[in-house]
Amino acid sequence: MIATQEPGFDGPLVAGVDVGGTKISVVVVDDRDRILYQHVTPTERSSLVGQIAGLVDDARRELQRDVVAVGVAIPGHVDAEDGSVSRAVNLGITYLPLGSMLQAKLGIPTFVEHDARAAVLWLSEHAADGSAQAPASVAFLAIGTGISAGIVLDGVLLHGDNGLAGEVGHVVADPDGVGCACGMRGCLETIAAGPAIGRQADEAIAAGRSTVLSPQSSAADVFQTATAGDEVAVEIIDRVADHLARAIRSLALTLGVRRVVIGGGVAAAGPALLDPIRSHIARECADSPLVEAALGDATVELLSPTEAPGARGAAAIARHRIGLRQREGVGQR
Amino acid sequence: MIATQEPGFDGPLVAGVDVGGTKISVVVVDDRDRILYQHVTPTERSSLVGQIAGLVDDARRELQRDVVAVGVAIPGHVDAEDGSVSRAVNLGITYLPLGSMLQAKLGIPTFVEHDARAAVLWLSEHAADGSAQAPASVAFLAIGTGISAGIVLDGVLLHGDNGLAGEVGHVVADPDGVGCACGMRGCLETIAAGPAIGRQADEAIAAGRSTVLSPQSSAADVFQTATAGDEVAVEIIDRVADHLARAIRSLALTLGVRRVVIGGGVAAAGPALLDPIRSHIARECADSPLVEAALGDATVELLSPTEAPGARGAAAIARHRIGLRQREGVGQR
Repeated sequence: MIATQEPGFDGPLVAGVDVGGTKISVVVVDDRDRILYQHVTPTERSSLVGQIAGLVDDARRELQRDVVAVGVAIPGHVDAEDGSVSRAVNLGITYLPLGSMLQAKLGIPTFVEHDARAAVLWLSEHAADGSAQAPASVAFLAIGTGISAGIVLDGVLLHGDNGLAGEVGHVVADPDGVGCACGMRGCLETIAAGPAIGRQADEAIAAGRSTVLSPQSSAADVFQTATAGDEVAVEIIDRVADHLARAIRSLALTLGVRRVVIGGGVAAAGPALLDPIRSHIARECADSPLVEAALGDATVELLSPTEAPGARGAAAIARHRIGLRQREGVGQR
Repeated sequence: MIATQEPGFDGPLVAGVDVGGTKISVVVVDDRDRILYQHVTPTERSSLVGQIAGLVDDARRELQRDVVAVGVAIPGHVDAEDGSVSRAVNLGITYLPLGSMLQAKLGIPTFVEHDARAAVLWLSEHAADGSAQAPASVAFLAIGTGISAGIVLDGVLLHGDNGLAGEVGHVVADPDGVGCACGMRGCLETIAAGPAIGRQADEAIAAGRSTVLSPQSSAADVFQTATAGDEVAVEIIDRVADHLARAIRSLALTLGVRRVVIGGGVAAAGPALLDPIRSHIARECADSPLVEAALGDATVELLSPTEAPGARGAAAIARHRIGLRQREGVGQR
């Protein structure tokens, strides 16, 4: 937990909460997007609304300052207008009027947005080095329990007429692949999301191909084993990277984006994930002048989950929605 | 050729030209988007600029009216700002400053746009029934010698930061597939574009699987043979439709569009193409609540090449760019 009280922090404060399948991240930021308070704790799925309200109250108490609004970033089908969440499979939510329930509990304006969209909104306002200048279009590829993208085109956050823009985790990657939670087969999620990486390790063990990998490994374990040089783990990660590189190529050739940021829990793997993705993209660029034109000078970067882009994006949305604008010419971390 | 002279037509006229790999289509429209003149002729690749200028002059002579601007729709990498075209593989163009050359010849403002983008711009201004009301977002999937998409999101035509938005023909469809002209392998184009459909017929013949299909069949021949009930042809078309349905699913899950229009030369096949695509989409919707949410109430329609959406879109762009607005409340065909 970080709680800072220095005279430089002022203006109305807003809280941002990022609800993940395993962890909840809370930030409180001032009107220059500087973090006054940051806290991460395991998600309590059975009492989500109460937990979020309690976390915001904790922050208020700790800071001895009030917050004027709350933004919540959450996976699933989010209706940003009424603040409801539906089909958040990884949280066990079928339908939850999260925004109105939370607003009733906290007594301050509360806004809800899809987690990858909240993150990309924050990213679109910040360049890779954290400065306020950033390309007008950016895709944030969130790889965790599931995979989805947040997309900003020419400065505008994309929701889609069907509310499902960015659900790239369910684009077919391997038609002969395993069944996906969505009901289809071989979706990108079934290959490159965290649980899928662990599953592929188990498959290698069951096939007698690995004595190094442990049963029920996490994605982090598989990355670690690959970094240590185990051939089977390297092969699994290479396949994951190959499919993520294809997904990035698809984004570049469909949306025309030249900045792709990879985040989510799996991004904690760092270079063990980014390096093989970049190798695959470099090979595709060498093979094809078209891919070179699309991606040759693109920025493909990794954002650590500790940067809390979802929570900071949720806070930014709350600030925008209540009509508080960030001070001009600022926006540094 | 259609040339109409009725008192109802007036206002400044603009010409639209759609340059395809095999045919060039020319229209002249009035300020209510009504067609006064329409002409289709084979493409002369060796003298493209001269041919386009000649066709516009023919239209002027025929109508005994001047046109105030020309829009040209063409495949390849189009720089809409300077009017240049590069990497138009199917026209044998490496680089051509088409806009400036044509403007010098014709002496009137000339604008160039990617063909699928020109088409989707026109579509975005017209609903399926030709009325002026249309959903704010639409994807036009052009299937001809190649495959590309024109995309309008919330009324804005998407070019992409890399200028390559909509190049969905080069999204990987079959990683183990045949080589593509772009340098990659198994792109959607290698399965579902016109020449690819003919190639798959030749492969079936070479494998001794068909005595009904003729060597070097066109896509139209294969559709006809499938409609006549030949099992091998039906299988080829079903595979094409399966991959196009997946591409439409990708567009719905990436961009969130709820209106997809299929056009290009291959769309001339009509229900023989649309029916199997719709069957595959219906099956995907039945399998997956997510796909149902994305595509269940989407409009997937076919636009005949005779509607000349590329030429009409090019004309609309020329009209917009010289600052002539269409008369309000109109827009009927």
